[in-house]
Parts: sequence; structure tokens; C-alpha cells
Amino acid sequence: MIEYGEASGDVRAIYDDIMQTRGTDWVNNFWKALAHHPGTLRRTWESVKQIMGAPAGEECLPTLTKEMIYLAVSVTNGCNYCIASHGAAARKAGMTDSQFGEVMAIVGMANETNRLANGYRVQVDSQFQ
Amino acid sequence: MIEYGEASGDVRAIYDDIMQTRGTDWVNNFWKALAHHPGTLRRTWESVKQIMGAPAGEECLPTLTKEMIYLAVSVTNGCNYCIASHGAAARKAGMTDSQFGEVMAIVGMANETNRLANGYRVQVDSQFQ
Amino acid sequence: MIEYGEASGDVRAIYDDIMQTRGTDWVNNFWKALAHHPGTLRRTWESVKQIMGAPAGEECLPTLTKEMIYLAVSVTNGCNYCIASHGAAARKAGMTDSQFGEVMAIVGMANETNRLANGYRVQVDSQFQ
Amino acid sequence: MIEYGEASGDVRAIYDDIMQTRGTDWVNNFWKALAHHPGTLRRTWESVKQIMGAPAGEECLPTLTKEMIYLAVSVTNGCNYCIASHGAAARKAGMTDSQFGEVMAIVGMANETNRLANGYRVQVDSQFQ
Amino acid sequence: MIEYGEASGDVRAIYDDIMQTRGTDWVNNFWKALAHHPGTLRRTWESVKQIMGAPAGEECLPTLTKEMIYLAVSVTNGCNYCIASHGAAARKAGMTDSQFGEVMAIVGMANETNRLANGYRVQVDSQFQ
Amino acid sequence: MIEYGEASGDVRAIYDDIMQTRGTDWVNNFWKALAHHPGTLRRTWESVKQIMGAPAGEECLPTLTKEMIYLAVSVTNGCNYCIASHGAAARKAGMTDSQFGEVMAIVGMANETNRLANGYRVQVDSQFQ
Repeated sequence: MIEYGEASGDVRAIYDDIMQTRGTDWVNNFWKALAHHPGTLRRTWESVKQIMGAPAGEECLPTLTKEMIYLAVSVTNGCNYCIASHGAAARKAGMTDSQFGEVMAIVGMANETNRLANGYRVQVDSQFQ
Repeated sequence: MIEYGEASGDVRAIYDDIMQTRGTDWVNNFWKALAHHPGTLRRTWESVKQIMGAPAGEECLPTLTKEMIYLAVSVTNGCNYCIASHGAAARKAGMTDSQFGEVMAIVGMANETNRLANGYRVQVDSQFQ
Repeated sequence: MIEYGEASGDVRAIYDDIMQTRGTDWVNNFWKALAHHPGTLRRTWESVKQIMGAPAGEECLPTLTKEMIYLAVSVTNGCNYCIASHGAAARKAGMTDSQFGEVMAIVGMANETNRLANGYRVQVDSQFQ
Repeated sequence: MIEYGEASGDVRAIYDDIMQTRGTDWVNNFWKALAHHPGTLRRTWESVKQIMGAPAGEECLPTLTKEMIYLAVSVTNGCNYCIASHGAAARKAGMTDSQFGEVMAIVGMANETNRLANGYRVQVDSQFQ
Repeated sequence: MIEYGEASGDVRAIYDDIMQTRGTDWVNNFWKALAHHPGTLRRTWESVKQIMGAPAGEECLPTLTKEMIYLAVSVTNGCNYCIASHGAAARKAGMTDSQFGEVMAIVGMANETNRLANGYRVQVDSQFQ
Repeated sequence: MIEYGEASGDVRAIYDDIMQTRGTDWVNNFWKALAHHPGTLRRTWESVKQIMGAPAGEECLPTLTKEMIYLAVSVTNGCNYCIASHGAAARKAGMTDSQFGEVMAIVGMANETNRLANGYRVQVDSQFQ
């Protein structure tokens, strides 16, 4: 992992942007690992900032909803790092214990019914097309 | 698939409950396929009803949020039937085109960063434990 | 797909072995597709024959059990071809409608609890180590 | 994790039922984690008990077969906790070292051929429809 | 799908860039679908162009290698659209029938050994850390 | 794990072949775990040797390309052991830091676009059939 002190100017500028955008004084390991490939660091951070950033319009999804969706995907894929980091992000955005429990129940249920639909080879209803 | 007309009394009662709960006059193929194993039909419907049903308290997640989480998992797993059915359910719960686009962007991004975290073997930060 | 009539002698010998081993007079599409890469065809058929073949000892798993395990994996992965082909193989080995329903219930449940264990980040009990 | 001593009456009743059903004097971590969301604890335990419980009829799958299917799904999904817990459950139900090896061979082979079928885009044979 | 004739100026500019970069006179369905969410269209295309584009230095991976890696991931995930489109892209970059067979053999083998490593719960050797 | 000193003659012969083929004086844990089921050890080693071995013809993929494909699949599946072992193998075959970064970028991007194709339910273009 590339720490702030040993980072190039370009990488340091991205670290600064991450901390400023998030209102924190530290950078988490994910970005310090990506810094080994500065192009991936910059591209990934720009994408995350754009997609997960503060809603810009009326219809936009609130940050809490976005983080719960991110968490749901990470749990489905079994990515331990992302479960920890986006679990923390969702908590920071206001997720309560009870809401976490709801998200987990939905994720479990969806993973179950996805396989039941596979196994029974269910045809899509014309009403859903 | 077991149609209403050929279903046993037990199965028919569940079909009736599905239609009444959802305010529809038809049952989608998923349930007609599960009806071959009445225990699974009953158990799965009770779980879906309990988890995805109308929020019962102040902190509970709204139906739209729940359906978007369900959709996000189904897209991650590549379950074509569930993408169609829960996409339709999310639309019915008020999801706009723009919000659908946001959900897809988050799902895509999460699937990408889940693998970057795997590949770079990133250790969980102590702050996230 | 490479049909029997247009296959090389080596490929034809494998097709013959598939039909003889299974007691059928046709070869399914999977093998006809693999025949484009004869090394993969031979290696895959030898492995399938060895693993899924008739039990050779007392403790060996019966064919029906093996085919249900194969089906469970295929449903989890959402492989449509394999769900169809190993579903058929399990039926041929004696799987009843009710047993199929049991397998699907287990597969669904396992996929659900796998994610609950991920999401709650459950530590392995010392008793299970 | 919620230990027995600090659990509510409802949760404690489920813990008691788990221990009694399994003939053990301890509750594994999975349930202690789910106890944070009592609705999920109750629903999941009821489902597991119903699906994995002692066979009620002649055609029902034996416990050993069920646990091997559960293990096969967990290995496919890479759920470390479930591999440990259902591996232990399968051993308790009588799985020998040799049978464990057979299950792993089938799981590996199925994961391989699932991808070969994907990659070669094999069409389902009419005989399997 | 949004066809060229009905696209906004911004979307049309991206379509033009796709065709010019690839030396084709048509845009494939993937981009026409993403055009419903112009931000995702632009971001995704910029990323694909940057990552999959012509190698800029001596150490960079050749296009054929990149497309085979893309194909290997798509086969593992069972994404039918991406198997077709990146299969075609790999062929265009020079992949022979025999090389396609090699890629599939590796993908199948990796999916098998990934599960054997999971199932046997193999510890990472100190030499690999 | 079964160490060399306690292995049967058959297993020892395979260990010898692994070390000789790879030009190493140790056997990694994966094979020591498979040795519990000698049939799987032999079959898996023969397959790996055949598929990942030195290219035999002009069109064959170079070892570095093969190992990067293996790594890409392992990262997609989140198999920690295989990421470590095949990451090391790719390094041994000449993969540079920069090339590793490229592989990760492709794997991340493919996992993202695989889900975008799923979620938008994109139809395969006739040109790709």
C-alpha cells in the first residue's frame, strides 16, 4: 500500500480529494492499494465520486439508499472488504440496526428466489416484458 | 405450471392471498412453478410477504427501496426472471427511468470494486472493524 | 457442433464411448460443441466418466445423489444447459418430483444463508474448525 | 453476537429449540448473529428446521444427502462459514472422508462444465426440454 | 434502445466516437441500451476506451490478450451478451479456434480448482504471501 | 495436509512430478490437501499439467497469458488461495506490476459491464451471432 508520504503528486492530489469529499482525515486501504496503478486509481475514484456522490436533483436516490444497494451487491458477491467498508458508509449515512437487518433479509431472500427461478426454469410472464 | 383451475385447495388459497395482497387479478409464473412443491410455495410466499410487505414502523425501509435492493441482487446474479419481475415491481413502486439508471450504475460499480478489492487483496482497515 | 458423420476417428471413438457408457443412441450437444477442441473433449469426458460413473465400492455415493449435487451446483451458477441436462440425468437416475422439490428447497435455503453469514460477518465457531 | 444470557425471552426460546432439535448444548455463531434481527432469526430457523429436518416420508431425502447438497452450494459460493458448519453437519450425519472427496470432485467438475457450456454457448437438446 | 437517428447530440457524439475508434459503421446494442442514462454511457465508454484501447507502451498487454481476459470473466459470470460480443472482439483481434479452445480449457479448470481450494479450505502457503 | 514423508508411493510420485515439472523443491498446500483423495489429486494434476504446461505449437498461448487468464477467473470468483498462487505463478512467468494493474482493470471493467448487460437486458446483436 502506498502511504500519503510516499505518494507521487498525482496520487496525493487524489488522496486529498477523497478526504475533502468525505470530510475525513484518512484514506482507506482500498485507494492505497489502487495507487499502484495510478490510472485505475483516478478512474475508479472519479466513477465512485460521480455515482455515489451527493444527489444533484429531486429524483436522485438518497445516499443511504445508494449505500444499502452497494452493500447488498457486496454481500451477494461475498467481498469481505466491501462489506466492511460500505457497511460503515451506510451506517455513517444513517442506517439503523433494524434497517441493516431488513437489507440482509432482502438480500438473503433474493438470493434464494433467484435460484428457485433458475431451478424451476420459470418463463418470464408476458406482463413483465 | 399449475394454473388456478387445476390447483388444490391449499395452493388456491395461497394464490388468492398473493392476488389480494398485491391488488392484482393474476398470479405470475414463479408461484405457479413453485406450486409443484406446496411446502416451498407456502414458505416462500410467507417469507416474501413478510420481508417485502408494507413497512410497519417508522424506521422501516419504503417499498421502492426494498425493490431496488432486490433488483440489484438479481442483476448481480444474472437471474433473468427476477430482473424482469422485480424490475416491474420497482416500477410499480415508483422507480423512474433515471432512478433505474442510478441503480444500474451502482450495481456495475460495486461489481467492479468488489473484484478490485479481491485482486489487490486489500486488508480491512481497523476503522471499519 | 460436430456431428458424428463429420467427426474424426478420435472424436468418433469418444462419441461411441459416451453412447455405450450411457446406453443411449445419441450424443448431446455439449460433447458435440467440445469436439471443436478434441483435447478438451477427451479430458472432460474421462473426468465425467470417472467421477459420475457407477459407484465402485460400498461407501461410494449412489448415482442419484451425485446427479442431485451436480444439479444443485448448476442451479446455483444459473447454467441453463446444465440445469436441463443434469435435471434429466437425475430424473433418469430415479429422482421423483418430490425429491426435485426438496433439492430446490435446499439450494434456495443454502444460497440465502450463505449471504446471511457473509453479511453478518459471522466468525467460524471453534467447534467447527 | 447475542449470547443466551443476554437474549430476550423470544430469542431464548428459539435458542432452546435449536439445541433441543439438534441434541446439543450450545448454539453456533450464525444464530447468535441473526438474533440482532429477531424476525430473521425466527423465519430462518423455521425454514432450516423444516427443510433440513428429519425426513417425514419414504421418498424424502436422507439427512446425509441433504447436508452434502448444502455443502456443495456453499463451496460453489465460497462461503467460508457455511463450508465449515455444513461440513461438520455432514460429518455428523455420517459422511466419510472418501464421500467428502467425491462431493468435492463433483462440485469441481460441475463448476468446470457449467463454464464450458456457457463459453461454447451450447443449445439445450430437444431431448432435455 | 436508442437509435442514432433519435439520439441527442451528446449521445450521438459518443456513438460517433465508438464507431471511429473501432473502425465500424454501426453501434452495438449495449451502447444503445446505456444511452437511456447518458452519464453511464459516457463514463462506461471512456473507461472501456481507456482500458481496452491500443497499447501505449512496451509492457502493455496486446489487444488479443485483453479480449481473452474479458471473455474469460464473461464466461465465468455467464453473461450471454458479453460472451457473444467479446468473443467476436477476440476473433477480430486474431483469436484462432485453437486459442479459443485453450481459453475455455483454462476458464473451466480455474473454476474447478477455485472450488477445490474453497472446499478443502486450503491455507495460503507462506511462499505466496 | 499430507506431507511428502507421510504420503503413499502413488501420491509421492505425483509430488515428484509436480516438483520436477515446475523446477521447484516444494509442493504447495493445494496438492497436499487434494492428496486426501488420490483420484482427485491425480486427475487434477494431469489436467493442470496438460492445460497450463509449456506451449506445444506455434498458435498456443504463452504461459504468461494463460496465468493471467487463470488469475482473472480467480479474482472474479473471489478465491483467495488461487489469487495468491496464480498471482505468484504469473509473476514467475514475467508479469510486471504494470501488467498486473492492466489485468485488474480489465477484470473490474468486465464485471461491471457484465451486470450492465444483464440489467438492461440487452439483446445479442445479429452481427455477433
